[in-house]
Amino acid sequence: MAISLICPTKDPTPWLGALRQVDSSIDIRLWPDDQPREQVDFILTWAHPPGVFQQYPNLRVISSMGAGGDALLQDPEIPTDVAIVRVVDSALVADMESYAIAAVINHVRRFPGYSQQQQQRQWQTLMALPIQETTIGVMGLGQIGGAIAQRFASLRFPVRGWSRAPKDIPGIQSFYGKAGLNTFLAETQILICLLPLTPNTRHILNTHTLSQLPTGAYLINMARGGHLIEADLITLVDKGHLSGACLDVFQTEPLPENHPFWSHPNITVTPHIASITQPTSVAAQIIENYQRLQTNRPLQNRMDRQQGY
Amino acid sequence: MAISLICPTKDPTPWLGALRQVDSSIDIRLWPDDQPREQVDFILTWAHPPGVFQQYPNLRVISSMGAGGDALLQDPEIPTDVAIVRVVDSALVADMESYAIAAVINHVRRFPGYSQQQQQRQWQTLMALPIQETTIGVMGLGQIGGAIAQRFASLRFPVRGWSRAPKDIPGIQSFYGKAGLNTFLAETQILICLLPLTPNTRHILNTHTLSQLPTGAYLINMARGGHLIEADLITLVDKGHLSGACLDVFQTEPLPENHPFWSHPNITVTPHIASITQPTSVAAQIIENYQRLQTNRPLQNRMDRQQGY
Repeated sequence: MAISLICPTKDPTPWLGALRQVDSSIDIRLWPDDQPREQVDFILTWAHPPGVFQQYPNLRVISSMGAGGDALLQDPEIPTDVAIVRVVDSALVADMESYAIAAVINHVRRFPGYSQQQQQRQWQTLMALPIQETTIGVMGLGQIGGAIAQRFASLRFPVRGWSRAPKDIPGIQSFYGKAGLNTFLAETQILICLLPLTPNTRHILNTHTLSQLPTGAYLINMARGGHLIEADLITLVDKGHLSGACLDVFQTEPLPENHPFWSHPNITVTPHIASITQPTSVAAQIIENYQRLQTNRPLQNRMDRQQGY
Repeated sequence: MAISLICPTKDPTPWLGALRQVDSSIDIRLWPDDQPREQVDFILTWAHPPGVFQQYPNLRVISSMGAGGDALLQDPEIPTDVAIVRVVDSALVADMESYAIAAVINHVRRFPGYSQQQQQRQWQTLMALPIQETTIGVMGLGQIGGAIAQRFASLRFPVRGWSRAPKDIPGIQSFYGKAGLNTFLAETQILICLLPLTPNTRHILNTHTLSQLPTGAYLINMARGGHLIEADLITLVDKGHLSGACLDVFQTEPLPENHPFWSHPNITVTPHIASITQPTSVAAQIIENYQRLQTNRPLQNRMDRQQGY
């Protein structure tokens, strides 16, 4: 039995090192030099090439290298008896949290505007948004969304959340399901998308939904590029309905050089860095799942194809 | 008995409105049309013209319109039997706090770097500083500095503070006095200046002190321009000893158009906006002090010429 790493877009060296640090006795291999593949029952992967898993007849578990696993859940070529798991990393939650805090406070305190003024050597006060009157709406109240919602509540923002099913998080007003979406959006001044990407949430940020936000609202997308119809956002910002956006994820990544986001004065672009999973902080739980597989114990952080996350 | 407002650089209208809202029976006047000046015993002021207070023979209290009162404490023309008070505003603490959070997280998450990359349509990951290994040093642990130190501790930064006398704040390592300064600086990776400006703290940020910081350290000055020798900062950043700075206050304000800070790639300039006192949130405490004066009760938030704050 062996683990194989398949991550053509990432440097596997730190991953191999971190996993071997946890348990040097395990047979860990690197695709494509991982023959004989009949011995591989556990694959750790990111951005896998289509069809690759079919070369592993005894595959039983695929682990995402990150918190998201949409590329795995939506791959019809993965047999249904292969379990899909992901990593849950407290460093990851903290990273997402600090990114969200920067994006929100930069907006309310007008840092992008001051940066433009600095380039023009302008000394002028821009009105800040009062924190206690600026409602943050968090879409997706899982481990990351729930922690971020509570952090903003502790910073004294009014906070509401929207999720598939109702959630009971202290201090957070809960909205849920299709029926609750418009009411949730109607008073959200800063919308933070932290949803998993599923067939139900793909393109959920579009002209129709974003128009429900009050005039001047701001969008922060830290989830997946597939949540947003990018042209719809640009139209709504240019019309003045939205004041701008801070985007870490895009339909196509890297963001193409000719994309209008790069030069839009009200859109902040970061290169999918809100959280970068550190091999050393998740290696132990990957090995734990591998050992659970070997001893037929229930896997941790298993994903559900039906729910899509 | 009457209150006079002397604030040549500020619009007095919202101040008059807010004070009259609290107590419409008080005689509130606006300099220079505030004759007869013998009736004025209480002055509310910001950026007063030199010598102006000598025109008020019965003056007993001068209140600063802000949290700082250095321009009053250091004015030798104010008679020693005139009490100097300031305002203490929770909105002000919250404003300073949100500015400090933005300045710190922008630095650790490399937002200025990503902003430069966006202008060049570059998609590249910049290494973030790990929050739990990035020590924040807060100079000045008064009401504002203490609250900010605790906020960063709650965000999981290691936090140390430096003040005139030792302070016991949960989770904050305390250093104090001249003897403690070098030790405090030696492991501070992000230095936040929140000191009052006194003869002892003027120019406290200079080549000698800033050189004690570890290589790559970052400076945030939210206190007064007089704390920093600006040329020393530029030299240390250009030599690579410091990684940069976020500055809200300057030796001369507005920052002169030809000042090198404006175009320095590692220096963020904001136009003294970390906190802007709102008349409505402090009017009640100004009136309270006026009424305490009338009834010979002890004043609130009195400043001490000796200590300088």
